Amino acid sequence: MINQLVKKIEELKAPIVVGLDPMMNFVPEHIQKAAFAEYGETLKGAGEAIWQYNKGLIDAIHDLVPAVKPQIAMYEQFGIEGLMAFHKTCEYAKEKGLVIIGDIKRGDIGSTSTAYAIGHVGQVKVGSNLYRGFDEDFVTVNPYLGTDGVKPFIDVCKEEKKGIFVLVKTSNPSSGEFQDQLISGKPLYELVAEKVAQWGEEHMGDAYSYVGAVVGATYPEMGAALRKVMPKNYILVPGYGAQGGKGSDLAPFFNKDGLGAIVNSSRGIIAAYKQDKYAKFGPECYADAARQAVLDMKEDLENALVNK
Amino acid sequence: MINQLVKKIEELKAPIVVGLDPMMNFVPEHIQKAAFAEYGETLKGAGEAIWQYNKGLIDAIHDLVPAVKPQIAMYEQFGIEGLMAFHKTCEYAKEKGLVIIGDIKRGDIGSTSTAYAIGHVGQVKVGSNLYRGFDEDFVTVNPYLGTDGVKPFIDVCKEEKKGIFVLVKTSNPSSGEFQDQLISGKPLYELVAEKVAQWGEEHMGDAYSYVGAVVGATYPEMGAALRKVMPKNYILVPGYGAQGGKGSDLAPFFNKDGLGAIVNSSRGIIAAYKQDKYAKFGPECYADAARQAVLDMKEDLENALVNK
Repeated sequence: MINQLVKKIEELKAPIVVGLDPMMNFVPEHIQKAAFAEYGETLKGAGEAIWQYNKGLIDAIHDLVPAVKPQIAMYEQFGIEGLMAFHKTCEYAKEKGLVIIGDIKRGDIGSTSTAYAIGHVGQVKVGSNLYRGFDEDFVTVNPYLGTDGVKPFIDVCKEEKKGIFVLVKTSNPSSGEFQDQLISGKPLYELVAEKVAQWGEEHMGDAYSYVGAVVGATYPEMGAALRKVMPKNYILVPGYGAQGGKGSDLAPFFNKDGLGAIVNSSRGIIAAYKQDKYAKFGPECYADAARQAVLDMKEDLENALVNK
Repeated sequence: MINQLVKKIEELKAPIVVGLDPMMNFVPEHIQKAAFAEYGETLKGAGEAIWQYNKGLIDAIHDLVPAVKPQIAMYEQFGIEGLMAFHKTCEYAKEKGLVIIGDIKRGDIGSTSTAYAIGHVGQVKVGSNLYRGFDEDFVTVNPYLGTDGVKPFIDVCKEEKKGIFVLVKTSNPSSGEFQDQLISGKPLYELVAEKVAQWGEEHMGDAYSYVGAVVGATYPEMGAALRKVMPKNYILVPGYGAQGGKGSDLAPFFNKDGLGAIVNSSRGIIAAYKQDKYAKFGPECYADAARQAVLDMKEDLENALVNK
């Protein structure tokens, strides 16, 4: 799957993943109205609204980008009905040829981590049958519990030719509270990055590992340092756009071959119609606005990489 | 809710939480057979089996302990159907008067952490209605992302009079990889504990905070140190029994008032019938075996605390 992701990035010339994080206030009114007319102002109605919203987005951008990254929290907030919309979104995006990065940030120990891995990127046994509960291609994993927490994901991914992105340096303002603390002169995030490089050796694709890292666009100087620590690990870069990361900040995350990183944008794309820049599209054409925002992001990244 | 938990611990003289982590191989054959006869060897059948298994356990132990801690990974592995069993289990345990500690180990940033908090311990708005997606009383939270990740949970908990347990020092063998690393001579877990104490001041109950910590029973000497760093924070202690923690290891986690900690046991109780000690009950009476295991654990803890 990492080989497929790299190939698609090269073909489309777009190291871009669209974050499908459907906050209810992003969903245009006409979609909310239709969903509530059918199911009432209920959790089921909310699930229908975010699913229809996502469907429109996927239809509009699936030929431009290699992958989408649904953020499961935005679905989980609506309970079971929200998670059904998450499941449907993943299935539909897969049908449309997109790679699915489940932004689930799970992490536990031993058999519990195995259970998460089985549920999201593996198969669960029921009697003599095997089923996929959810079916992402990659998931994000929290490293705080150490190798015991991460290894079970890698074991399941090895069987499935799927992968993970481990949180290394997150994009938020307070990420430094623990992640930047110096341990024998080296920040914690670098120690985690060294482990990612090591874990990654266990599950290699052609040029890159199935084990990647999450490093926020908001910390470009750390991106440069971490690129060196993890030369063969793909870096998933959140924080572009709404969180303040600019195209010119992103060059350090890439290798000289122009590969090695995939940049996420969520609200900058899916809620583009709310920005002045794309206001002309209007809420009815929110998906066209998203498509234009992807094209603009692609250009911004191309310029950043040419000038590298 | 922390006041209610403390009160129940005192009344029942049982600082015990039963971990409802239903691995399929814990579920007695007669329950699996009945569930599969009704729904086939499907995800729905698996969901039904773990729900029936849990129901039996809750019926058998609800008058002995203050709380249960369902581990969501064990449900999530069966996808939507598993999560429906999780939801049903929480509802039923609540009906039976138990406090629900959702072991979800979530953690993200800003609006995403808010979404998790809303989904598990808060209420989500749909049009002009409010709903609870899931409805736990406490949840476990991963601190790797810093205050940005934890604060949104506390904000929601303040409105709801609910609480969280933040991972400080986990019970697994490799927990030291990152958590024990020294930062200016102090291990990372202690730094996290200091933050927990600080976050906890924002949301106090009568004697204890609504913000607690997770510290593994497998590290009693760290328990003693952390008890001092977080005098007003309840400590949720996993790792008793199957993971190697003994009653005599647990005294350091408690305050002098005999309060301040709640000890989790999962498979040691819910799969007690599989141990030689409780084999006489047989799989048909797995719930009676669980009840006896709770009584034995209660005695073990009482002895440990008397000798403190």
